[in-house]
Amino acid sequence: MLTFHSQDTKKRQAKTELDGGRLVTPYECPERVDMIIDAVRQRGLGEIRSTQAYGLDPVLAVHDAAYVMFLEQAWHDWVAAGLHGEPIPSIWPARRLRADAIPDHIAGKVGYYALAAETSLCAGTFEAAQASKDVALSALDHVLDTGEHAFGLCRPPGHHAAIDQYGGYCFFNNAAIAAQRALDTGANRVAILDIDFHHGNGTQDIFYERDDVLFLSIHGDPRQEFPFFLGHADETGRGAGKGFNCNYPLASGTAYPEWSDTLDDAIDRLSDYQPDLLIVSVGVDTFEHDPISSFRLKSDDFTDCGQRLKQAGLPTLFLMEGGYAVDEIGTNTVNLLSGFEAC
Amino acid sequence: MLTFHSQDTKKRQAKTELDGGRLVTPYECPERVDMIIDAVRQRGLGEIRSTQAYGLDPVLAVHDAAYVMFLEQAWHDWVAAGLHGEPIPSIWPARRLRADAIPDHIAGKVGYYALAAETSLCAGTFEAAQASKDVALSALDHVLDTGEHAFGLCRPPGHHAAIDQYGGYCFFNNAAIAAQRALDTGANRVAILDIDFHHGNGTQDIFYERDDVLFLSIHGDPRQEFPFFLGHADETGRGAGKGFNCNYPLASGTAYPEWSDTLDDAIDRLSDYQPDLLIVSVGVDTFEHDPISSFRLKSDDFTDCGQRLKQAGLPTLFLMEGGYAVDEIGTNTVNLLSGFEAC
Ligand SMILES: [Zn+2]
Ligand SMILES: [Zn+2]
Repeated sequence: MLTFHSQDTKKRQAKTELDGGRLVTPYECPERVDMIIDAVRQRGLGEIRSTQAYGLDPVLAVHDAAYVMFLEQAWHDWVAAGLHGEPIPSIWPARRLRADAIPDHIAGKVGYYALAAETSLCAGTFEAAQASKDVALSALDHVLDTGEHAFGLCRPPGHHAAIDQYGGYCFFNNAAIAAQRALDTGANRVAILDIDFHHGNGTQDIFYERDDVLFLSIHGDPRQEFPFFLGHADETGRGAGKGFNCNYPLASGTAYPEWSDTLDDAIDRLSDYQPDLLIVSVGVDTFEHDPISSFRLKSDDFTDCGQRLKQAGLPTLFLMEGGYAVDEIGTNTVNLLSGFEAC
Repeated sequence: MLTFHSQDTKKRQAKTELDGGRLVTPYECPERVDMIIDAVRQRGLGEIRSTQAYGLDPVLAVHDAAYVMFLEQAWHDWVAAGLHGEPIPSIWPARRLRADAIPDHIAGKVGYYALAAETSLCAGTFEAAQASKDVALSALDHVLDTGEHAFGLCRPPGHHAAIDQYGGYCFFNNAAIAAQRALDTGANRVAILDIDFHHGNGTQDIFYERDDVLFLSIHGDPRQEFPFFLGHADETGRGAGKGFNCNYPLASGTAYPEWSDTLDDAIDRLSDYQPDLLIVSVGVDTFEHDPISSFRLKSDDFTDCGQRLKQAGLPTLFLMEGGYAVDEIGTNTVNLLSGFEAC
């Protein structure tokens, strides 16, 4: 399997993450990319390819234009306003506060466009987000052109990024951008299966009213886990999208037997949908030693997971999402991809 | 004029405030109380009285019961969850995220009940908030019993606290709690005039659909200033409350001539309403050297402001809100109260 990769994904080097009331070094660090590339090489998964530049049009096909402009400008505006830390939102339009008037001041804008506060903005974030979606689109085009499966080593991840909200380390929704491009270039139906520990609230948001993208997400129950305010089982889509959104919230502490039963159920739903393309949002933060998550998958379980995914029998694009046990991120990710290839 | 005061208002001693992407020592510090008490004594404003305990019933008359229980439990639950900093929200139910399911985990609960992230919770916060509303209610009862004016040295402040949201250094809405008790003990109409630099979003929220409380607020334009997502001029009340909410957003840099013209307009509206009681939410963060605000009132302007407020000719309860230029907070506050008394 080819891996698509860009060094520019490492241009985001934030210094701070708000974590349990403290500012810590971000869990979502550029070293994650190096560890995965090393494992791809050592395990001989396949060739590593560089990416092409796709510009912002594919981003604007799923994200709000003012949101994209905000991301491009935010760091500059924050510094110009004389603020000294990294941009972190401190107020937001929740519940009875108004979301119909976007503030002029950058401190208000950051709160308007953020859905969470752990993700500091910084110089290089916009460039890294652009490189990340170029990884996704380059890998997508390889799948579409050749019928082969491919792995896009996206970073920063994308699945928490909504139509016009960033957070959870995500800025552009790489999986959604790739799905939309697949549809725009001939596919009739795309399925996105999100196996990251966290609910893919952004992907759900983008496609919630559509029937041309089936979204399936297996994740920590939002009553207990980030993103807390989306990802419940009763969110099944709206309007034309009714029935095309499927959440599998699982309890903290879930281990592989229950997790893989759930995966099999999701694969059954995939088969029923008969998509032209499967995009897998790959998070390996389901790993038992992940520092911010609470499932208990072991490294070998990822191999088995890859084997099960192969059963779906679909052209498959793997896109990297989360995984914060940096020492094991390469092993776990390549286990999954190798398990898939080996079948 | 009597001042009502409780040492227990100093029990909140938070260590951290999220400010421009950094964690700093909170601007809303217990020393603010000492500086005001010193000025009251030095200037001979009048006797300083201790407070009575009113319990939680007057709080529950305006705040949501689950919210009050959350505030009581939050610090304990946060520590029990193994989180090491002070409770700061990191995700919230803004816009298309769901606000209809309150998370079980304390990290999600904090995000549900917070409207802003600068205000860390800490041990002693609930006790200080209780002491603060006891200050307000003790001062209120003196006004109701004697017809004299009074000053309640509330701390923490209250005007950002909404029905079930804390933030902006506020937990219980002291002015709203006092207004409700005045109504419950015989008043027919109460007016709250909020002259703090920041919009009193919480007070507006609590009375937005009611005509028995007129709320007037003069503040920094939310397009530029905290709380950013409420406080626009077009927010005039809803249902029975239509016409009983009046916001005066003013531009950053506003000085006393324009500010006092606006005050005169608000006083005219007060006179038209003919309330049985006037509660003034006194913030002196309109001061030119306030570290987090942008109006340009000088210390002498507060004296003139007090004189103008006297023109309304109403039984008046002053309750302390903001003011973060700690060295001048006593002078500015007592200037206002003395200006009022001297007429
Ligand atoms: Zn994740
Ligand atoms: Zn204020």
